[in-house]
Amino acid sequence: MRNLRLELCYDGTRYRGWQRLPGVENTIQGKLEKTLSRILEESIEVIGSGRTDAGTHALGQVANFHCINRMPSEEILRKLREFLPEDMGVYTCKEVSPRFHARLNAREKTYCYRLWNSEEPCVFQRRYVYGDSRPLNLEAMEQAAEHLVGTHDFSAFCGNKNQKKSTVRTIYRIEILPKGHELQFLFTGDGFLYHMVRILVGTLLEVGRGEREPETISALFGKRRELAGQTVPACGLCLMEVKY
Amino acid sequence: MRNLRLELCYDGTRYRGWQRLPGVENTIQGKLEKTLSRILEESIEVIGSGRTDAGTHALGQVANFHCINRMPSEEILRKLREFLPEDMGVYTCKEVSPRFHARLNAREKTYCYRLWNSEEPCVFQRRYVYGDSRPLNLEAMEQAAEHLVGTHDFSAFCGNKNQKKSTVRTIYRIEILPKGHELQFLFTGDGFLYHMVRILVGTLLEVGRGEREPETISALFGKRRELAGQTVPACGLCLMEVKY
Repeated sequence: MRNLRLELCYDGTRYRGWQRLPGVENTIQGKLEKTLSRILEESIEVIGSGRTDAGTHALGQVANFHCINRMPSEEILRKLREFLPEDMGVYTCKEVSPRFHARLNAREKTYCYRLWNSEEPCVFQRRYVYGDSRPLNLEAMEQAAEHLVGTHDFSAFCGNKNQKKSTVRTIYRIEILPKGHELQFLFTGDGFLYHMVRILVGTLLEVGRGEREPETISALFGKRRELAGQTVPACGLCLMEVKY
Repeated sequence: MRNLRLELCYDGTRYRGWQRLPGVENTIQGKLEKTLSRILEESIEVIGSGRTDAGTHALGQVANFHCINRMPSEEILRKLREFLPEDMGVYTCKEVSPRFHARLNAREKTYCYRLWNSEEPCVFQRRYVYGDSRPLNLEAMEQAAEHLVGTHDFSAFCGNKNQKKSTVRTIYRIEILPKGHELQFLFTGDGFLYHMVRILVGTLLEVGRGEREPETISALFGKRRELAGQTVPACGLCLMEVKY
């Protein structure tokens, strides 16, 4: 069995997220598997570095799949580009060691959350940002972000009520970058729980609006979901990079 | 009568162009007039700096309209932002001299045509570029562009077969800027004929592919439409700025 590694991007707007679902047409994984199965004339299962939510985008998603067909990887790449819809793109398709596993071997992930913090029009980026023009205290959000960095129990930042496995994760870095009318929140960590980035941003925005004090963030670790902030919309979120 | 000046942007993808057409819902002018008439409770006619084609975008369109209603311009701006669809945006709405006319007073316009010149995916900008990955000779296109600059009879670059008025226009500047996988063609002139920018780009691309010699460009002035290059798709075109 060959093992092939894909680097891909997608505009998540019209998809129900990464994960294939029975009877649901528009998932990223489902679309990839259907297209690859057609190209390679065998049943293909695609392993992603992780699941992205419905409506969430990716600039640097990584996936792998096994196949028997000996079609050169350049030809698979070319056919993928030909057959995938225009809101999905493949950067590379490369033969890798049989042991490579896109999810299990992922070491570090970076997500970006884009907030359009202005009443000015945002016509051309509207599908990729969340618009909220309320004024924000950047310094307070940066203080709060410092408390989030490190290894903590992020139970309060997990949107899955039935999460059985550990909710401990390590955040290596958080950057909050003002870019014109936009504010970009960059999170780098060893992995993120379901909805975790969106709840982190929602909580930081509450700090930014003065509804929560930066010092109170640490008190959320190991606590119930209800105590953290709101889940901001998926459209502002983008998976930027996965490191192995 | 008051005279108000608008600066606006729009994603032209789902519109039939600027100009209001009887029985056609989705035109930029039509949508603006309907929204303004509703806000101001009087019948509003909007004058644009010029018509953009179906599918063409604008980052810096300018328009004006007359009204009797004394609603403050800030309130009109706020309501426009509230009621216009998310693919149309208004930067400013300001009271101007009764003599200001967005079309007749326009002195200079700049258009940008964006070509995605690569087989690499272009997922997030796909609505705003024209994709053609064939290799191009930038130097040859720059030579051809030099011939186009100046005051010429652009009859061969006019898509309107029934054009009665003069086809003489002045192009002040043409810049061809490589930006990663993208090539941006910037045209600044005193005005542009119907489809003119798209035919200019189509002709430059033929030069870039070696199908036409740069020196042959000057021979097109005053000639028939058939002698110039193809009209490239509207989606790559954007009206960037209008100067008065």
